[in-house]
Amino acid sequence: MVQNVIVPPRGFRAAACSSGIKRSGKADLALIAAERPVACAGLFTTNKVVAAPVLITAERVHKGICQAILVNSGNANACTGEVGLTDARRCGELAAQALKIETDLVAVASTGVIGVPLPMSAFEQHVPNLALQLDDGKFLDVARAMMTTDAFEKVCSRTLKIDNKECRILGLAKGAGMIHPNMATMLAFVLTDAAIEKKCLESILRTSVDLSFNRVTVDRDTSTNDMTLIMASGLAGNRTLTDNHPDFATFSRALNDLLLELAKMMVRDGEGATKLVKIQVVGAKTDRQALTVAQTVATSQLVKTAFFGEDANWGRIIAAVGYSGVEIEPSLIDIQFDEVPVVTNGVGMGSEVEAKATEVMKKAEFTVTIDLHIKDGTGYYYTSDLGYNYVRINADYRT
Amino acid sequence: MVQNVIVPPRGFRAAACSSGIKRSGKADLALIAAERPVACAGLFTTNKVVAAPVLITAERVHKGICQAILVNSGNANACTGEVGLTDARRCGELAAQALKIETDLVAVASTGVIGVPLPMSAFEQHVPNLALQLDDGKFLDVARAMMTTDAFEKVCSRTLKIDNKECRILGLAKGAGMIHPNMATMLAFVLTDAAIEKKCLESILRTSVDLSFNRVTVDRDTSTNDMTLIMASGLAGNRTLTDNHPDFATFSRALNDLLLELAKMMVRDGEGATKLVKIQVVGAKTDRQALTVAQTVATSQLVKTAFFGEDANWGRIIAAVGYSGVEIEPSLIDIQFDEVPVVTNGVGMGSEVEAKATEVMKKAEFTVTIDLHIKDGTGYYYTSDLGYNYVRINADYRT
Repeated sequence: MVQNVIVPPRGFRAAACSSGIKRSGKADLALIAAERPVACAGLFTTNKVVAAPVLITAERVHKGICQAILVNSGNANACTGEVGLTDARRCGELAAQALKIETDLVAVASTGVIGVPLPMSAFEQHVPNLALQLDDGKFLDVARAMMTTDAFEKVCSRTLKIDNKECRILGLAKGAGMIHPNMATMLAFVLTDAAIEKKCLESILRTSVDLSFNRVTVDRDTSTNDMTLIMASGLAGNRTLTDNHPDFATFSRALNDLLLELAKMMVRDGEGATKLVKIQVVGAKTDRQALTVAQTVATSQLVKTAFFGEDANWGRIIAAVGYSGVEIEPSLIDIQFDEVPVVTNGVGMGSEVEAKATEVMKKAEFTVTIDLHIKDGTGYYYTSDLGYNYVRINADYRT
Repeated sequence: MVQNVIVPPRGFRAAACSSGIKRSGKADLALIAAERPVACAGLFTTNKVVAAPVLITAERVHKGICQAILVNSGNANACTGEVGLTDARRCGELAAQALKIETDLVAVASTGVIGVPLPMSAFEQHVPNLALQLDDGKFLDVARAMMTTDAFEKVCSRTLKIDNKECRILGLAKGAGMIHPNMATMLAFVLTDAAIEKKCLESILRTSVDLSFNRVTVDRDTSTNDMTLIMASGLAGNRTLTDNHPDFATFSRALNDLLLELAKMMVRDGEGATKLVKIQVVGAKTDRQALTVAQTVATSQLVKTAFFGEDANWGRIIAAVGYSGVEIEPSLIDIQFDEVPVVTNGVGMGSEVEAKATEVMKKAEFTVTIDLHIKDGTGYYYTSDLGYNYVRINADYRT
């Protein structure tokens, strides 16, 4: 279900393999390497229980320079105490030795089961081989090796012009967003050959993440292992991007767009999800209040099960608006499903209209628009439906 | 699944019937009446979208005196605009006329589908008959007529001595607590023959609700129709209870205990729930922080699906502790399932211990204790597992 042709940015290669961490024998270990040290930035989980690889990588990435990412699935190396830290460091060493670079230039990332020590023999055995197999055609394999409960790999790319030079951005991600609100690890790696000033890389990343991944997962509901990294090789030959560069906005838009596409893939994957629903709130007092309403509706278990049941149960939506805590006036609220208005002035428009709304809900993607008619604040959130497969997948994830 | 013999308090009678509001033909309308006006108090939803019966009843109950409750299921009379208010008033009038009392003395309550006008002909036809059928042996029927997605009726009673007089308390409730966090209507009616001062009735009720219903449902996740009412006939003959009465604490404890039992019934019912799990947090900095942690763990979808899968996946629990936002130190956390310790100092104790924990999870009821080892704050929350039946029931609730 890869929807983009993958255009690898210049200066990066990768490899992936099955190292045996996953009992299933599926791919579970991957290495991404730049030709030389490159500018980088990262955003990390705000969970107070932080996995060992996050601790190690956050410190290294903070310096703004990095050359490789070693990522494994099948084991999160979280809640593993001192052993976990030693193991995460050793993973980085193995990659550094294999690539003949400084250990400090290796970011490590893990996702999978919590509380089980990493099977280090898998790393000792396979990391050296990965370094020998690096290739610029293997990024799809990397995305596959990052998967845990993901039903499909998440990769996409963009090509744009900066200073009339072709620049490429590639995004790799794993995670099933909204449907897994409490602790699914979200990993995303962005590689670009654009030249970008080190000090504005983090702010660009933060803005894009806020408009994409943060619109599908609830802020407080972070996992122990969440991590988004960006690496910029600069090989596109553009003048280094800064806030003042005339094409800065172009790059920023492309990155936003790329991350939003990855975020929507996560929702669509949503561990058994069958629908991608945009909750669009308009007419709120402020943009922040609109976002709060959108998030509250998008995370309502009852709203999500109604989506699964294709039941235009707007009562559940309006009730969620009511407990969102923001300023509303029930008698002003309008709700529509795509172009079908189902609630006007806080009152339902009857069963005929609901039948039309039910037709909208049969689609794989649709938008629920909630107009609060207070002021002009807007905000959106993406969500999925909640069906039987969510329970099936999560009730026996470990077994 | 009624676990108590019902001992009706003196001075109250009730009746219930199938009025046709529910298409299934099940009982959906009930009337509770006191012999004369009695002291009362009520607590109502904090949702900003408030159903018509809540608006009407809150105003009436605020006066501290009441004589009857008319309750229907199958239709919430919420988001029904001006028509809804007119209908809710008319319901009260019908009961008042049938009982030959003032309309202001009738509380009305509704639960069911949102956004559909009440079928008033059902009320016009059946309320007069209900008044003729009042009996002190029909409270179980009332509890049944309050049910929506409830799998069983929720009734329990307590008998205690105040001033050496036998006092009785009866509780009737509907709702499937935790599992329905977003908008399941919770209705609870408490009837007692104890004499209680009007002005301390509300504070007694508030304290008990905080220790019971508020430990199974998330505060912000209120429905449009939530309501808890207490009526005290005073016919037990005790000296009127006030804060200073020597038996005040005895009464208060009995009420706490009764409401907690009803709350636990709601969790156990939990729309397909198979387990009742107490999340007990100790060693927090404050009681409030302990409660926040307990609530965060109890409402984690992933923790709840793990309970359903009988998987001692403590990683999901510790991750929820981590994003609860309270002060913790991961390396100090201990977790046990009943008497089986599975995490010590933030690290798992291995697969042998987890196998024992899995045995604990096969029970219908168990406790997960989380010790934060910060200070001595404690708090608890009750939750259920999240399984296939939750999806089944909620995906086609209206169809």
